Parts: sequence; C-alpha cells; structure tokens
Amino acid sequence: MDLSAYLNQQQERMECALDAMLADIDSPSPRIIEAIRHSLMGAGKRIRPILMLASCRAVGGNDEHAIPMACAMECIHTYSLIHDDLPAMDDDDLRRGRPTCHKAFDEATAILAGDALLTHAFHLAAQHVPHLSLSAHLDLISSLSKAAGITGMVGGQMLDMDAENRTISLEEMQTIHRHKTGALLRFSCVSGARIGHASEDHVNRLKQYGDAIGLAFQIADDILDVVGDTTTLGKPAGSDDRQAKSTYPRLMGLDGARQEAQRQHTIAVEALAPFSNEADPLRAIAAFIVHRTH
Amino acid sequence: MDLSAYLNQQQERMECALDAMLADIDSPSPRIIEAIRHSLMGAGKRIRPILMLASCRAVGGNDEHAIPMACAMECIHTYSLIHDDLPAMDDDDLRRGRPTCHKAFDEATAILAGDALLTHAFHLAAQHVPHLSLSAHLDLISSLSKAAGITGMVGGQMLDMDAENRTISLEEMQTIHRHKTGALLRFSCVSGARIGHASEDHVNRLKQYGDAIGLAFQIADDILDVVGDTTTLGKPAGSDDRQAKSTYPRLMGLDGARQEAQRQHTIAVEALAPFSNEADPLRAIAAFIVHRTH
Repeated sequence: MDLSAYLNQQQERMECALDAMLADIDSPSPRIIEAIRHSLMGAGKRIRPILMLASCRAVGGNDEHAIPMACAMECIHTYSLIHDDLPAMDDDDLRRGRPTCHKAFDEATAILAGDALLTHAFHLAAQHVPHLSLSAHLDLISSLSKAAGITGMVGGQMLDMDAENRTISLEEMQTIHRHKTGALLRFSCVSGARIGHASEDHVNRLKQYGDAIGLAFQIADDILDVVGDTTTLGKPAGSDDRQAKSTYPRLMGLDGARQEAQRQHTIAVEALAPFSNEADPLRAIAAFIVHRTH
Repeated sequence: MDLSAYLNQQQERMECALDAMLADIDSPSPRIIEAIRHSLMGAGKRIRPILMLASCRAVGGNDEHAIPMACAMECIHTYSLIHDDLPAMDDDDLRRGRPTCHKAFDEATAILAGDALLTHAFHLAAQHVPHLSLSAHLDLISSLSKAAGITGMVGGQMLDMDAENRTISLEEMQTIHRHKTGALLRFSCVSGARIGHASEDHVNRLKQYGDAIGLAFQIADDILDVVGDTTTLGKPAGSDDRQAKSTYPRLMGLDGARQEAQRQHTIAVEALAPFSNEADPLRAIAAFIVHRTH
C-alpha cells in the first residue's frame, strides 16, 4: 500500500474534523479560540488519531464513529505540547517551525488554551458512539483519563522531570516512555478497537501492537538523534547527547537499539497476524517506524 | 438549622472522600501526588461539593451517590486555583495562608499537578452512579466539561484577562462572573439534582438557585472588599479598588449592590419553594451569603 498517500488522506480528514469541532464551540472569548486554533491546526502529523481510526477499521468497524474520540485524542496531545513548551517546562520558542502558543500569544493565554483543550477533550469523548454500550463508553472515558493523567502521560512527564540530569537505568527509561508517550498511543489503538466492537482477543492484540510501536517509535527517535541530520529531525542532531539525556543508543549501543526496534516491530506484526488486509495501514506504519532506524 | 455544624460535618466528609481518592491513585511519581495533596487537602471550604450533596438530598436523592462527582468538582476547582496562582497568571505566593503549589514545589510541578487534577476529575466523573441512566451519565460528563471549559470557567478566566485594566459595563462583568464562577456553581446544583433523580422542574429550580447564589456570592465578595477588614477577607480590604477592578459596588453603588444581593436571595429562596425541609441547608447557605453583605 501507498502509506504516504494514506497518511495524507487521513491527515486531511482529521483537519476537517478538527476545524468543524472548533467552529462548533460557542466561546465567550475569541482570543482563546485563536490560541487553540494556532496550536491545533495545520502542522500536526495526527499519528494518534490515525492509529485510532486504523485500529477501528482493522477490527471491521466503521471509523466514522471514532472521529469524536480521535479529535479528543488530538486535543489532549496538543494541550500537552502547549504546556510542555512553556518557559517553566521546556521553554521552547518554536514548534513545527512556528512560534509556540505562549510566544504567539502570551503565557497566561497558553496555560488557559491548554486547560481548555484538555477539558474539551472529555466533552468530545462523551459524544454518542453508535452501537457502543453505554457502560463500555463510560469505561473508555475513564481509560482516557488514566492514559492522559497521573497514571499515564502526566505521570510520565513528572518522572521525566525527576530524572533530569542524572543517569537512569534502561528499566527506568522504559517506565518513563511507557507513561509519557506509550499510554496515549496504546489508548488510541485500544479505543479504536472498542469503538469498532472488537473481541477481547482483538483488543488485547491492538494493545500489544500499540505498546510495541510506541517503544519502536521512541527508539527510532533516539537513533535518529544520533545518526540523523538537523533538517530531517526539526531539531539539532545530537541534542539529546548534549543534554546528557538517557537514550536507547546510549544505554544499549546503536546496534543494540536497532535490534530492539526490530524486535518490537516483530511483536507488532505478530500481534496483527489474525487480522485481514484492513490492518495493512497498521502494518505499514509499524514497518515505516523501524525503517527509519536504518 | 445550625449551618456552621452542617458545613463542618460536610467538609469532614469531603476530606475523607478526597483522602481516599488520593490513596486510590497508583502514581509512578510520588512528587506529583505530594503536590496535589498540598493543594487539595486541608484548607478548602468545599462549597461546590457541599452544594452538590445538598442538592441531591433536596430532591430526595441519596447523596452518597454524588460523592465521586463531588470529588471531581473539587479537583477541578483546585486545579483552577493552582494554575491561577502561577506567575504568568495572578502570581500569588500564598493561598489560604499556605504557600501556593509553585512556591511549595516549582512551576513545572504546579502546571503538571493542575493538569493531573483536571484529567483525574473526568475519571471520577465517569465512575458508576447507582440508578442513573447511562445516557444521563454521559450528558453529565459533557456538561461538566462545558461548565469547566471554554464555554464556562476557562472562557470566563480568559474574558476576565481580556477585561483587565479597562472599565467594563455591568453586563460584561456579569458575563464574566456567570462563566468564571457561575458555571461550576450551577453545575454543582444541577448534577446533584440529576444524581438524585430529580424531575426536570426540580432540576430547573436548582439551576435557578445555583445561578442566583453564584451572583449573590460574587456581590457579597465585592461588598466585603469595600467594607470588610483584612482579617475576615484573607486579602487586603480595598484591593479590588486599588486594582481599578470593575465590581458591583463600583458599578451599582454600595446600596444598589446590597439590594441586588437581596434580590438574588429572593430568587434563590423562591426557586426552592416546592422543596421539603431536606432543602433547608440550601436555604441556610443562601441566607448566609446575603447576611454577609450587611
């Protein structure tokens, strides 16, 4: 399959859905909508929503039904970037080549825009999903909160901060990744499957797939930071190294890291074994991630 | 009724519930739980949860069923205080006589602790409520998001920032209050009623009650800032005046503001007219708010 065409088409679909979502908000303050639009629209790769829609299709579901939850996921991802970029956090002026929210607006607006996106995500997550049992729907909302919150992404961000400027073990590093980036990737796959009425076996397989590509993605990022060039990365190559950050190549060696990425790819592909060719986008995404490491 | 004893008892009940809630979180980072505990526990008046529990009882419901939603409400209120206190927002070092979260910890931790509380609120809001229809439950979660987000509290905070250092009309000021503080007070009363299986008429009456006491509360605050002393207020008396902030006494005169508080009290009491003496705590709370203005 032509992965690049597929990703472009799904990205466009998400742009339309997010645009419609913003138009639907009856805000008392135009400025907060402007700030949200600045950060939410235009430049995102929409990886998490695309994984959710693809997981829904992979189990034979109608992925239109996953659109509100996919928008919720992108709201949560975007809020986390806005808050991460703040001066008290990573203090970044640029994101995807454009001024970060607090640079384009101001810090207070960026804090509120992030809060607003996070809050709005749960309005979207509570929207009607055809044929999903209401108790399964409430479970999904609770799981979204767990994946995004203390037991997931926010907890991982905190662990990451705690670990700054000290050497950590491979196990600690994996715990950080599993929370900070893994939890939402896993939720994207699992929720897509649940919205598509997957069997428990299929849900578990998509959970394994999500975990494996989450790890592979992180390893690929770390490897590219060592061997890539600044243009491909969008950040200076070697910047992790200069910050004495714990990375897979540092803890496992470059070859060890590549082997681990390959191992995670195998886990991801095997998890998808019983699925039809409706799962081809998921297979292509896994292959693409590992391909980047070589 | 002895309002003071009632409030103490309900506050203790909420302390226990919030403490149990925190103990129930399996956090990868002890530090974020410490930061949350610092801001959430101990000093809050728990007005919103108490209104929710009292509204549930007023319609004949079992208020134990409202405890998770009441905890969710307090998480949202607390996150809003943590983010409001940040240097980029109100830049406050003290809250209820104790160091604010970013002073006791650091700014990054305070941002994440706020994000974590907001996220966790929706896990709590999705907890099983006996005998509540699941579609009504999803509606409540969506309403909580609206009351807390762009169309509610966060939108009001943004409007308030937009209005800083310029004179605004009475109408604009009321729009700010209705969003910034009114939306969550109204939701507290409405959700308590819904969890107690109220009729639509009773839900609407508690919505009116919530709106009226929200306004009365704000007017009382503004009046106390003019006539109160620093000890009662916990902030220097006249501080609104020095900041050239638009207040009810400034826009309506002190007598006009007192009359308006009285008028809102009448609306609140009339809204409760068909309720039994189970609504006495709500009546006593309304009377107490207006009593403060004289």
